[in-house]
Amino acid sequence: MPRRSSNRRNKPDAFSIPQIPFQHVENPYPPLEILNAEQVSSIHDTSMKVLEKVGMRIDDPQTRELLENAGCKVNHDTTQVLFDRGFIEQQVAKAPSTVKVRARNDERSLTFGGNRINFMSVAGPAFLTDSDKGRRPGTFAELQDALRILQSLNVAHGANGGAFASMDLHPETRHLDTLNACFTLTDKVAPVSLMGRTRAQDAIDMACIMFQTDYEGLRKRPALYGNINTNSPLVLDREMAQGAMTFAEHGQAVIVTPFTLSGAMSPVTIPGALVQQNAEALAGISFIQTVNPGNPVMYGSFTSNVDMKSGSPAFGTPEYVKATLASGQLARHYGLPIRASAPNASNSVDAQAAYETQMSLWACVMGHINLVNHSFGWLEGGLCCSFDKMILDAEMVQMMVENLKPLEINEDTLGLSAIEEVGSGGHFFGAAHTMERYNNAFYSPILSDWQNFENWSDSGAQSATERATKIWKHLLEVYEAPPVAPSISKALDTFIERRKIEILGA
Amino acid sequence: MPRRSSNRRNKPDAFSIPQIPFQHVENPYPPLEILNAEQVSSIHDTSMKVLEKVGMRIDDPQTRELLENAGCKVNHDTTQVLFDRGFIEQQVAKAPSTVKVRARNDERSLTFGGNRINFMSVAGPAFLTDSDKGRRPGTFAELQDALRILQSLNVAHGANGGAFASMDLHPETRHLDTLNACFTLTDKVAPVSLMGRTRAQDAIDMACIMFQTDYEGLRKRPALYGNINTNSPLVLDREMAQGAMTFAEHGQAVIVTPFTLSGAMSPVTIPGALVQQNAEALAGISFIQTVNPGNPVMYGSFTSNVDMKSGSPAFGTPEYVKATLASGQLARHYGLPIRASAPNASNSVDAQAAYETQMSLWACVMGHINLVNHSFGWLEGGLCCSFDKMILDAEMVQMMVENLKPLEINEDTLGLSAIEEVGSGGHFFGAAHTMERYNNAFYSPILSDWQNFENWSDSGAQSATERATKIWKHLLEVYEAPPVAPSISKALDTFIERRKIEILGA
Repeated sequence: MPRRSSNRRNKPDAFSIPQIPFQHVENPYPPLEILNAEQVSSIHDTSMKVLEKVGMRIDDPQTRELLENAGCKVNHDTTQVLFDRGFIEQQVAKAPSTVKVRARNDERSLTFGGNRINFMSVAGPAFLTDSDKGRRPGTFAELQDALRILQSLNVAHGANGGAFASMDLHPETRHLDTLNACFTLTDKVAPVSLMGRTRAQDAIDMACIMFQTDYEGLRKRPALYGNINTNSPLVLDREMAQGAMTFAEHGQAVIVTPFTLSGAMSPVTIPGALVQQNAEALAGISFIQTVNPGNPVMYGSFTSNVDMKSGSPAFGTPEYVKATLASGQLARHYGLPIRASAPNASNSVDAQAAYETQMSLWACVMGHINLVNHSFGWLEGGLCCSFDKMILDAEMVQMMVENLKPLEINEDTLGLSAIEEVGSGGHFFGAAHTMERYNNAFYSPILSDWQNFENWSDSGAQSATERATKIWKHLLEVYEAPPVAPSISKALDTFIERRKIEILGA
Repeated sequence: MPRRSSNRRNKPDAFSIPQIPFQHVENPYPPLEILNAEQVSSIHDTSMKVLEKVGMRIDDPQTRELLENAGCKVNHDTTQVLFDRGFIEQQVAKAPSTVKVRARNDERSLTFGGNRINFMSVAGPAFLTDSDKGRRPGTFAELQDALRILQSLNVAHGANGGAFASMDLHPETRHLDTLNACFTLTDKVAPVSLMGRTRAQDAIDMACIMFQTDYEGLRKRPALYGNINTNSPLVLDREMAQGAMTFAEHGQAVIVTPFTLSGAMSPVTIPGALVQQNAEALAGISFIQTVNPGNPVMYGSFTSNVDMKSGSPAFGTPEYVKATLASGQLARHYGLPIRASAPNASNSVDAQAAYETQMSLWACVMGHINLVNHSFGWLEGGLCCSFDKMILDAEMVQMMVENLKPLEINEDTLGLSAIEEVGSGGHFFGAAHTMERYNNAFYSPILSDWQNFENWSDSGAQSATERATKIWKHLLEVYEAPPVAPSISKALDTFIERRKIEILGA
C-alpha cells in the first residue's frame, strides 16, 4: 500500500538525491558496427539454413497447427517445425520498426526503435539481497519496496514486477498482486510475465481496468509488453508460445529472446551462438506475425558465454560485448527494435559487479540497443536482486545518459572571455563565467564520493556499496505513491479477488 | 634486486594467472566523434585567439629567448609570450604523426599514433596503499615491488617509476635509483620525469648505458619519453620547460599535457576547457618543435571537471568522457598522437573505483587514444597508488583489449555443423565443435569470480578487491627479473654512484 506523508512540505523527497529528471534518451552518435555487410549476411544466411534444415521443436500444438496452416512443414512425430526462408523473411517484414508502450503517466510512455534507448529494471531473480538482511527469498512486502525504489529512480524507464518472486504469495496468483503493485506503486511501464495464457490474459484484463479501456482500445494503444525466451537450442515451449499468442491476439508487444549461452545452449563460438540466436528470434517473431500481422515485437539478444570450466554463465565479458554489438546490427538489418541487457556475474556488489555491468552497459549504448533490460538490481548472473545494486546501477545509467548529451559549442561555452579574464596563473573559481554557471555546470553523482581521503575517512570511510544502502533506505522513507483514482484501485482489487477464487477455488 | 628462484621448473610463474600475452593493440573500429568538423574548427580558432591575445606566461628565460628569436612577441615585464597562429600551425606541422619508443626487450618497444593503443601504469601519486598495510608513504623497496607487478602484468605496456615517491630516498637523487629499477626489474618502456634539466639529462645518460649507445644513437632510436604539464591556466614553469628542452635537444619524446580541470584551472564549460587545453598543448608542442624540428611529441589531454561544491577533482565523469573523445578528435585534426588517462576519484578499491575507471577506459578506447596513462594502480584522484587496483585494472584493460579483437566469421565459427549435431533440446558441452575449441574459446578472467553463490560463499565470499590482494602477492612470489648483462648493470651502478656524489656531495 502506498505510504502517505502527513506533512508533505517538511518531508525530504526523492529529489534530495541528485537525480536527473525522467527523460527519453536518444543516442546521437552512430552505432559501433563490428560486422561488415557480408558478415551480417553470412549470419543471416546460416541462420536461415538452421531453420530450413533443423527447424525448431515447438511444444504447443496450437502453435504448430497455426504454422502448418501458414505453410511450414511439421513433423508430427518429433513436433519439429521447419521454416522456409521465404516465409521467415515475409513474416519478419510485417513487424513494425518502432514499438510504443503506454504508461499510466503518459509522459513515461516508452518508444522502442531507432536511436531511442530505454533502461528497464531486473526481472527473473529467485532471491533478494541487501546489506542489512543478506540473501533470502523475497516477500511481497519487499517486492513492493523494490517497486518503490524503481519508481523513485528517475533514470529507470520502467519497473518490472519480476524483480524477484514473492515467496509468501501463491505461485498461481502471484502475477495478479505483482501487476497490481506495479500499476499502483509506479506510474511507469510495467513489463509482465508471459508464462502461459492465464498470466498473459490476466495482465490484459488488468491493463483494461488500469487504462479504463477495452480490448480494442488496448490494441490501438498497447500498454503492455512481455518477454518470451526460447528454450535453446531450438525449442519453443508450450507456456511461452501460449503467452506470446495471447499477447499477439490482443496486439500487445512481445520480445523474443533466445537463451543462447555460448558453449552450453549454443555453439562455443560467438558467431555460431549469433546464428542460433538469430534463427530462434526470427522463428519466434515469424510465429507472432502469423498470429497477428504487424504485431509489435522486439528482437531479443541475451547471447553471452559460459565459463567452460564450471559451466557457469558469464556476463559483461568481451564475448558479451561483441555479441551485443553484433545483435544490434542484426536487428537493424531486419528493421526491428532490439533488446539486450546490462548483466554481470558477480556474487556481491563489488568492483566486479561494477566493471562487468559497465562492460554490458557500454556495449548496449554503443550497439544502439533500444531496451536495456536488467539495468537496475541484477546480481549473481540473474539469480539475485540487490537493492544496493539498484543504486549503483542508477548512478552508472545516469552517467551513461549524460554521456549521450552532445557538447554545446558556441561563443558562450567556448569561454574566451573567461580565459581572457583569468589570464595566466590564478584560477576560475571566481570568474564571472564560472559564477553564472557553477550550480549546474557538471554532472552531480548520486553515489560517487569525491571528498579527499581525509574527509572521506572522517565521514566513516564507506565504500560505494555501503553508501548505496543509505540511499535506497532514504528513497523508501520519502517515497510517495503516484495517485491512482480510487475507482480504478477498487476495480483492480475486485478483479484480483475474483480471479483468485477462480484460480485457487473459494 | 631481482629475486631468483633456485628451482625454476617447480615454481609457479606469472602465467599461472590467466593472462593474455604481451601484445600491441590496434583499434579496428572507427573512433567515436562527438564534434563535427565545424566544432573542431571553432575550438581550434578560439584557442588560437587565446594564444594571440593572452598567450602564455613562460617562466624559463631560455625558453622565452628561443621563442622570441623564432618570432614570438615577448613582454619582458610580465614574461608573457604571445603566439601568432601562423607560427603555431607551422611548428605543429613539423611534429611526426607517429612516435616510437624503444624498450630493452625490443618486442615491447612501443608505437604511438594511428589506431595503436598503449596502456601505461600510474605516475604521480604521493602515497601507496594495499589491503595489508593501508595507506602510507612508500619506500623504494615497495616501488620495486610495484615495478615487479607491472613487469608481470602482460597487458601493461610499460612500467612508470613514478608510481609513487620512494620517501626513504633523497629527493634530489631518487630519479637515478628509480630509473635503474625500471631498467633492471622490467624490460618494458619506462617513462621518466621531466622535472628540470638534471633529471632529464640523467635519464638520457642512463638510457645510453642501458641501450649501449651514444646521444646520436639514442636520437636515432628514442628510448625515452616524458610528460610535462602546463601550470594551467596558461603558464609553463621553468622546470618543465627545461626538462622538455633537454629531451628535445636529444630527440626524445615529450608529451605536453595541460592541467585543465574545468571550473578550477580552466573555464567551467567543457568546450572552454578544451579551448584552453588546446592552446596550452599546442604552445608547448610548438616550443619543442622550435628546439628540435620534427621532435617526437604527443598531445596530452587531462581535461576533467572539479566538484564545484568542494573543488575536488572528479574523474571518469560524463564530462571526462566527452573531453577525452573531443581531445582525440583535436589531436587527429593536427596529426598528432594523443595521450589521455584512465583515472577515477574513489578513495578505496570499490565499485566506484571500477565504474569511474571503466568510464575513462571506454572513453579512451572509443576516442582512439594512443597512450592511456594511469591505466594501472591509480586511486584517490591520483594521490595514491594501489597494488589491489593494479590487478583490478589489469582485468579491465585485458577485457578491453579482447573487445578490440574482431569476430572471425567463417564456416567454422558460424557453427552450422554443431547446431545440426545438437538439434533441438540437449546441449553443446559434448559436441565435437565444442570439444575442439573449449579450452581457448572464451576470455579467461584474472580476477572475476564466476562461481555460483554457494561455492563462492564456501570459498570465503571474497570481494574482487580481496581476491586482487592475493593475486599481486602471488605475482611477487613468482616474479623473475628479465636478465640484464652484468656489464650494463655495473655501468648503471657506477654512473649512479658518481651522480649521487656530484649532486649531494661526497
